[in-house]
Formats: sequence, C-alpha cells, structure tokens
Amino acid sequence: MIGVFDSGVGGLTVLHELLVSLPEEDYIYVGDSGHFPYGTKTVEELTARGVAITEFLFEKDIKLLVIACNSATAAAGPLIRKMGAEAGIPVLTVVGPEAEIAGAITESGRIGVLATPATVASRAYARALEDQGRPFTVTEVAAPDLAPIIQGGFPFDEAVLQTVRSYCEPLKEADVDTLVLGCTHYPLVAPMLQRLLGRDVRLVTAGHAIAGAIQRNLAQGGNLAKTGKEGTYNFLVTGDKEGFEKLGTRFLQLPLDGRVEHIELGE
Amino acid sequence: MIGVFDSGVGGLTVLHELLVSLPEEDYIYVGDSGHFPYGTKTVEELTARGVAITEFLFEKDIKLLVIACNSATAAAGPLIRKMGAEAGIPVLTVVGPEAEIAGAITESGRIGVLATPATVASRAYARALEDQGRPFTVTEVAAPDLAPIIQGGFPFDEAVLQTVRSYCEPLKEADVDTLVLGCTHYPLVAPMLQRLLGRDVRLVTAGHAIAGAIQRNLAQGGNLAKTGKEGTYNFLVTGDKEGFEKLGTRFLQLPLDGRVEHIELGE
Repeated sequence: MIGVFDSGVGGLTVLHELLVSLPEEDYIYVGDSGHFPYGTKTVEELTARGVAITEFLFEKDIKLLVIACNSATAAAGPLIRKMGAEAGIPVLTVVGPEAEIAGAITESGRIGVLATPATVASRAYARALEDQGRPFTVTEVAAPDLAPIIQGGFPFDEAVLQTVRSYCEPLKEADVDTLVLGCTHYPLVAPMLQRLLGRDVRLVTAGHAIAGAIQRNLAQGGNLAKTGKEGTYNFLVTGDKEGFEKLGTRFLQLPLDGRVEHIELGE
Repeated sequence: MIGVFDSGVGGLTVLHELLVSLPEEDYIYVGDSGHFPYGTKTVEELTARGVAITEFLFEKDIKLLVIACNSATAAAGPLIRKMGAEAGIPVLTVVGPEAEIAGAITESGRIGVLATPATVASRAYARALEDQGRPFTVTEVAAPDLAPIIQGGFPFDEAVLQTVRSYCEPLKEADVDTLVLGCTHYPLVAPMLQRLLGRDVRLVTAGHAIAGAIQRNLAQGGNLAKTGKEGTYNFLVTGDKEGFEKLGTRFLQLPLDGRVEHIELGE
C-alpha cells in the first residue's frame, strides 16, 4: 500500500495521476482537512501534523509515502524523510520530481513556475532547478488568488479565466517552453493554461512527476504491484466527511463515494 | 472563423480540444439542443437539421465546418461535404480522423472502439479502419448506458465506474493497445478508462484527432490564424440556454458564461 497525505483536497490531483498511471497499487490517502489550510501555520505546527500523520501511516504498513503538499514538504520534509530512512520506507514529496522532469524536457532552458506566494517566497522550485547545475532561466509567478478560487468554487468561469490570464502574461513575456504547476490545485485549470500559453508550452504537474518517480523507486526495489487488476483506494479525513466528498470529486475525477472515513489524528 | 455543430453538449469535448490546441482561431458552435437527441431521428429528419445548420453557418462566413456528431455525420455527412465542396468550405467530421490516428499509433494492430449501439451497428469506425488497407483486429463494444449516464448526471460515481468496467472487459480480453472513444461524451470518463485499461493503452478522442486534421487542412491552404492572441468563441443553441450553460461547462472545461445565445433555426 502507498500512503499519500495533504492538508485537504489538493493532493487528490496527485492521487488522480497515481490511480491512472499505477492502477494496480493500493492507496490510502489522509486528508488533514480538520487543519486546513496549512499555508498559515507555523513550522512547529506543520511539523507536529506531518509527524503525526507519518506515524499513523507507517503503522498502516505502507511501502512508500507521498507528501502531496508544498507547505508540509517545506516545513517537515527533511524530518519525515529521516523518519522514512529509519523505517526503511521511501518518502517522495512535491517539488523535486517536478523540477527534475522540467529540467529534462525543456529545450530552451526557459522554465516557468506558477505557485502560491509562500512557495515562490521559499524559492523551493528555483533551488531544485539550480541544483541540477544547468543554466536555466527560471520565471516564477506568485498566484495569490488561484488556489482559493479553485478551492472555493467552480473553476471554469470567466473570472477564473481573467485571473489565469493575468498570471500568464509574465510567462509569455519570458517565452518559457515548460511550466511547472507548483500547487496541487492547478491541474484543474490546465486546459485554460494550455490555451493561454499555447500548445507548445509543456505543463508539468506534481501528479505526473511523482507517478514517474514512484514507478522508478518501486521498480528498483522489485516492489511494484503486478496483480493484473485494479488496486484499492480509500480516504481518511480529519475534517468534515461530506464536504471532502463533495469538493474532492472534481479534484480526483474518479469515484470517492463510499470510500471516505472520518478519523481523529494527533489531537 | 471555424463552425462546429452537434445535437447538444457532446460536441463541446471536441471544441474543448480545438480551443486548447488551436487557440488563435475564432469559433462558432451551434448546439441543436432543441432537437436533442439525434440518435432517435430518421435520416430525413437528420438531413433537414444538418442542411439547415450548415446553410446557417455558411452564411456566417466560416472557413471550415466541423460536424462534431456521429448521428449527423452518418445521416448527412456526404450531402454536407457536397455543400462544402460547392461553397469551397472544407468539412471535417468525426470517425475519419480518429480512425486515421488510431491506425497510425497502434503497434499491435489490435484496436478497440467504444461507441453507442447505433454507431457500432453502422460499422462506421470498422469500415474507416478497414479502408486503410491494413490487417487491423478491431474490437467494437456497444455502450448503451454510457452517454446517457454522462449526459444525465455526475460522471464520477461508483455506478459509472461499474458501467465503464463492464465495457472494458472485452477490450482487455482482446488486448487492444489503442482505443477509439467513438462518442463525444466519453472524454469525461477518459481517466476511468485509462485506469481500467492501463497506461499503455492509448485513447483516441474525436477532439484530438480533429484538431490535428484542422491544423493540417488550414496550414495547407495558408489559412491558419496567426494573431499571437486568443481567438473568440461563442455558442448558439436552439434549446434552453440555461440548461446548455449548466450542462455544457463540464464538457467544455472552459468558461461558457456570457457566451451563449438562443436562436431559432430551420423550424
């Protein structure tokens, strides 16, 4: 079983890609929606949440852990990786796999990153790209409105289009050929971004990047599921179950009904 | 301007792909929702509708016409092509471009077609594949429930998954490496199909295939729009405007609001 966690529904776009790309694996997803949003919490608070969820998932005997959340990765990533190393459980996070794919597929070396202000301020993507030791030109755009708009309502109306259009302007000016979607909410507006930026700009999502990284990691250890049939997937949420189901379905784009349970975790 | 028509919202998945792949073009979409569904109409009725819509769009000075509807293509395709030839306006339809792409990308030669019972009975896809003169093994699966389920409700629940799973069984048994989605409603369940069939099976949609065919056609004639900015798109519907907006948005996955007008056409 593979464990995935996030502060809410955003990480479901990552799980979506895992369910589609690695359908034979079993998944357990912890949505810490009782503590959403992570973006306004202190490092200490995020570390406490991350450690509690990681301990919970390690007890479920997972073979790999995915932190599908930028804030949790930034605050608690190193510590959770250390917990994973001690337990012999690989830990994958956002940022790294996306930066790796973006670096591999860019032709012009001009890479865009669209992310929340906190993520842009952390320079996590810029550093991960710099660490590849190649002379990329990275254009980072902070999108304060985009995740809340997608989270809060219907993502396909004219107001969203206007918002997305404004964030695309600097990316078009910089003539990027690759765009990292640096927030798990953004795949919902991928068609809009593709239309505004043009078909030649390649979009890199966390889900796609992590699916590739998981496959390589499990294949190396001989741990890829090969059952020839669909695996299972289930959800444990610390917040309201109905709200998670309702909101989550358009992020997952696969059935959630009957698979969601409420839990108390680390209170 | 490019004209696109369909009996309702299904063709919006085709328009979606055109808006994303060829964003600089202007589009006008006629949704003949006042006469939905086309599937139960006679050839004479469908021909009358197709001719009326074609005349209407030709008067709008379109440079290319897309019939984004299987039933209308089957009944009135040849006549509308003839009208196009006389007016000097290229006419593209479903079926042909999909069969061409499927034939080009299959490696094993085992191609699946998932379509409505009427489309399967017409053998339109099977013939279009046979016409390529190569020894394909074609497995056609008639899906009576799928388009109505997607049209009528929420496409991501457990009941839909069960339905889709049953239609995937013969495709898995036949070990197809390529699947033609032979109905414009089906892209909404593409992630589900991909999960059930496995990542190695390539899905061919009408939108993707027609976008490629339009690009080639317009490029040959030097008629591709090259404005460097987004084109316009608008909708004319013969049925209820609000219903079309509400239902259409999840097919288009781009803003419809403020772009839909009701018209009377050929009554």
